Amino acid sequence: MGTVSNQLSYPLDLVALRPKNGAPLHRQLCDQLRELILEGAVPAGTRLPSIRAFAGELAISRNTVIAALDQLAAEGLLESRRGSGTHVSAAVPVAQPSGPAPAGARAELSRRGELMTAQPRVRTFPGRTAFHPGTPELAEFPFKTWSRLLSRRARFGGEDLFGYHYISGHPELRDVIASFLSAMRRVRCSPEQIVVTTGGQAALDLLARLLLAEGDTVWMEEPGYLGARAAFLGAGARLSPLTVDRDGWRVPADPKSPPRLIYLTPSCQHPLGITMPLEQRLAVLEVARAANSWVIEDDFDGEYTFRGQPLPSMQGLTDNPRVIYVGTFSKTLFPAIRLGFIVLPPDLADRIKPAISNTGQFAPLVLQAALADFIEQGYFFRHLNRMRRLYGRRRAVFLTLLDDHLGPWLAPIDGRTGIQLAAPFRAPIDDHAVVDRAAAAGINLAPLSVYFAGKPSMSGLLMGYAGVAEGEMRLLVPRLKRIFEDIDPRMVDEAIS
Amino acid sequence: MGTVSNQLSYPLDLVALRPKNGAPLHRQLCDQLRELILEGAVPAGTRLPSIRAFAGELAISRNTVIAALDQLAAEGLLESRRGSGTHVSAAVPVAQPSGPAPAGARAELSRRGELMTAQPRVRTFPGRTAFHPGTPELAEFPFKTWSRLLSRRARFGGEDLFGYHYISGHPELRDVIASFLSAMRRVRCSPEQIVVTTGGQAALDLLARLLLAEGDTVWMEEPGYLGARAAFLGAGARLSPLTVDRDGWRVPADPKSPPRLIYLTPSCQHPLGITMPLEQRLAVLEVARAANSWVIEDDFDGEYTFRGQPLPSMQGLTDNPRVIYVGTFSKTLFPAIRLGFIVLPPDLADRIKPAISNTGQFAPLVLQAALADFIEQGYFFRHLNRMRRLYGRRRAVFLTLLDDHLGPWLAPIDGRTGIQLAAPFRAPIDDHAVVDRAAAAGINLAPLSVYFAGKPSMSGLLMGYAGVAEGEMRLLVPRLKRIFEDIDPRMVDEAIS
Repeated sequence: MGTVSNQLSYPLDLVALRPKNGAPLHRQLCDQLRELILEGAVPAGTRLPSIRAFAGELAISRNTVIAALDQLAAEGLLESRRGSGTHVSAAVPVAQPSGPAPAGARAELSRRGELMTAQPRVRTFPGRTAFHPGTPELAEFPFKTWSRLLSRRARFGGEDLFGYHYISGHPELRDVIASFLSAMRRVRCSPEQIVVTTGGQAALDLLARLLLAEGDTVWMEEPGYLGARAAFLGAGARLSPLTVDRDGWRVPADPKSPPRLIYLTPSCQHPLGITMPLEQRLAVLEVARAANSWVIEDDFDGEYTFRGQPLPSMQGLTDNPRVIYVGTFSKTLFPAIRLGFIVLPPDLADRIKPAISNTGQFAPLVLQAALADFIEQGYFFRHLNRMRRLYGRRRAVFLTLLDDHLGPWLAPIDGRTGIQLAAPFRAPIDDHAVVDRAAAAGINLAPLSVYFAGKPSMSGLLMGYAGVAEGEMRLLVPRLKRIFEDIDPRMVDEAIS
Repeated sequence: MGTVSNQLSYPLDLVALRPKNGAPLHRQLCDQLRELILEGAVPAGTRLPSIRAFAGELAISRNTVIAALDQLAAEGLLESRRGSGTHVSAAVPVAQPSGPAPAGARAELSRRGELMTAQPRVRTFPGRTAFHPGTPELAEFPFKTWSRLLSRRARFGGEDLFGYHYISGHPELRDVIASFLSAMRRVRCSPEQIVVTTGGQAALDLLARLLLAEGDTVWMEEPGYLGARAAFLGAGARLSPLTVDRDGWRVPADPKSPPRLIYLTPSCQHPLGITMPLEQRLAVLEVARAANSWVIEDDFDGEYTFRGQPLPSMQGLTDNPRVIYVGTFSKTLFPAIRLGFIVLPPDLADRIKPAISNTGQFAPLVLQAALADFIEQGYFFRHLNRMRRLYGRRRAVFLTLLDDHLGPWLAPIDGRTGIQLAAPFRAPIDDHAVVDRAAAAGINLAPLSVYFAGKPSMSGLLMGYAGVAEGEMRLLVPRLKRIFEDIDPRMVDEAIS
C-alpha cells in the first residue's frame, strides 16, 4: 500500500505467486524468498517490508506471510531485530559463488575408485534373456509360493526380524544352509560359520577387503570370473594368472611367489564350465597349506550337474581352516534375490561382524526368513530338481543345435555342469564383433576374450542356455549362423563343400 | 563270499551301512568309501573287491554297488584298469595332512581387515527395543499393505525385475526418490543421479572407496556416526575431527590441511541431534569449494522434524557438484529393509555402475519395486506423517519423564529433529557402566562416549524414544533412576536436598 517505500517493496517485485500452482501460497512465498536471498538478489542485512505490506502487495493473508517468514527465520535466513523489523540474516554470505563448479567436467576419484569404475562388465539388454550367460529360467520359478512366504514373513516378522540384530544372517537361514551344505556339498560347517551376504559378489568383495593388503598376490583363474577379479583388484591385490583350459587348471608345482590367496571355481569353472579333477584340487590344497594361503572356493553352478553327482566341495576335502566356501542363490532361485553366503573358519565368523555391519553388505532379514521357509518346506530342492531336469533337456538340444548350425565355427566345451556353455571359435574371429552383431539381432552373448586379464588365448562365446525355451533356441541359433556367415564368408564355402 | 581273500575284503570291514538311516544305500556306501579313501585308510593304488564281493558281503544289490563306485570314479577317487578291476586312484595322496592347521588359532587378516573388524559397534539386544537408538516404531508400520505390494511384485515381476539389469536401481524407484527429494528436501537432482544401495551404510562404504585414497584427510564429525567413521577408516583415510557440541559445528575458518572429503549429518547430527545452522552450512560449503573437497551430506533423520519444517538440503544450497547426498529408508520404514540411496553428480552416477556391480552393494529389485509402489500410492507419506505426530507426542512425554526422574544426572539436548535423544551427564560418570547396568535391567542404551574417536569431551546416553510406547516409558525411566542412584549416591542427596 502507499506507505511502503520503493526501497522496501523491492523484494516484493521479484515474488510471483501462482494461486493455481498447487503448492500452498506460504510455501511458494517461502521458497521464492529463500531463492532470492541465497542467490544474493536480496543481500544480507536487507530489511524486509512489514507483514502488512507483504500481505497487501501480494494479495494474500497475513497468516500466509507469517508462516513463510517463520520458516525462513527457523532456517537462519531471516532475523528479527527488536524495534527494527525483519532483516535478511547477516550470516548469509554476500553472494553464493555462481561460476561453473571446478569439477564440472569429470569427477576425480581415488586411484582405487578409478580402478573400481574401470572394470569391464558384460553388457546386458533388459527384456532379452537369450542367451545371456548365467540366467536361469525365471518363468518356472514358483513365484506364487515365494510371494506367499515372503508376505507371511513381512506381515508377522516381529521386532527381531526388523531390527539391527543378526548381522551374520537370520538364524533359521544359517541353520538350513549349514545342513544342506553338509549333506549335499560335504562342507564341514556349523550354522555359526555361515555368514549371509547380499549375494555372492558381496561375499567376494568383503573377503577381498578382509584378507588382502595392497600388493598381495592372488592366484586368479585365467580366464576367470570378472566379479572376483574386480573385487581383488579393488582391494589392491596383484593378480597372478592360474591358467585354465579344456584340460583343467595348470597348477604350478613349485610356485615362485607364494600366493596370499587362491581363487577357484572348482565345481564349474567360470567361464569354461569344466570341473576341477581331484588331483588338481589336492595339488592346490597342498600349495595353500605350504604357503599358508587363503583359498576361496566359489562353488559356482555346482548345483547343476548333468552327469553323475556333483563333486563334494574342496572345503570338505581338507581340515585346513583357510579354505573359505562361497555360495549364492542367484542361479538357483533368481538373480535379483541378492542372497549369498560364506562359510568361514569359526573364529573369523565371529570377528567379521563389525565389518559386515560397516560395509552394509548384509541382506534384508525378511528375505532371509522367507528363504529359510522356502528351503525348509522343500520348495527349494523341488525347484532345483525340476530345473536340473529341464536344463538337462535344454542343454542337449542346445548342443545339438550348435553342432548342426554352428559346427564350422564353434567347438563347445561340454563340461558336465553349469547353466551356461563356453564355445571357443575354431578359427580366430573377433568375438566382440560377433557379440555386437548378435546384440543388434536381439541376441545376448558374452565374448570369451573378456574373461582374460592378459592376452586372450582363445576367442569365442559364452552362452546361457538355461533360460531359453527350445522353440526359441531353434529360432535363434540359425540367426546366429547368418551372422557367422556374414563375418566369416570363407567358412561358408568350407561348410558347404 | 568264500572267494574274497582277506586282503581284498579289507575296506569292506570298515563299511557299516544302516538300511534305516534314511539315506539311500548307494549314497551311504559312496560316502563311507570316500571318507576311507581321503583319510588314507584305503591308500592310493588299493585294489577294491569285485562288485559281486561288495554286494554279497554287505548284503546289498549289485546296482547299489555300481552306483556308488561310478560316483567315486566320476570324482576321480577310483579308476578302472582293464583286466585288473577297480583301484583307488593313484592321484589320491598317501595321506591327507591331519595335524592341526597352522592358522587354527586366530585367522590373520590384512591390516585393513584387522581395522575393519576392530571397529566399535553399539551392542543390540534382540527383543528389547527400549531405548535402542535409531529404532522406529515397528508396530505401527503397515506391514499388511507392504506385504501385499511386495507379494504382487514378487508374483508379476517379469524378467526385467529378476535379471541383472538396473544396477543403479529400479527405474520407478529412482523416479519417485528424485521427485520427493526435489519437492521435500530441495535436492537438485534428476532420476539419473540416483543410485539405490543396500542401505545408507552401503552408500557410505561405496563412496569412501571410490573417493578416498590411503592417507587422504576426512573431516569427520566428533562425536560422530560410527558407521561413517568405519567406512572412511576402512578406505584408508586419516580422520581429522570436526568438533560438534550443543552450539553446533566448529568449522575452522582457515583449515591447515585441506580435507579431501567432509562428512556431515546437518539435518540431525548423529549422535547429538542438533540441526546445522545456515551460516555453518555456508561456511563448510565455502571450505569445500576452496579446497575442492567432496562433501557427503548424510541426511540422517531429517524427515523427523518436530518444530517448523525441515531445513532444505545442503546439496540444494549450492551448485557445487561435489556435494553428495545420502539417504536411507531404515528409519522411515524399518531398519531391516536395507534400502538407501545416493544422489551423485550426473557424470559419476553413470560411471559408478561397474563399482556397484562388483561390490554387490545393490538392493533386491523386487523390494525396490514394492517400495516404489508404496511411495507412489501415498502410503509412505501417510506413514511418515502419522509417525511424525506419534513421535512428537512420545518425545514430549520422554523429555518430561527424563526431567522429572533423571534431572539431577542428565541434561538432554533438545534438538528439533530425530528419533533419538542425546543426554550428556551433568557430572562425569562412566557411561559404559550405566549402559551395562541398564542392559542387565532390560534397557537398551548407547554410551555417548563411544561416538568419539579421540578423548570424549562428554559422557552421557543416547536413547531412542520413538519405538517405545508411553506406558513403557513410564515404567522404564524410573528403573533407570534407580541405576543412577546406585552408581552415584552422592547425587541422590543433592537431588533430595
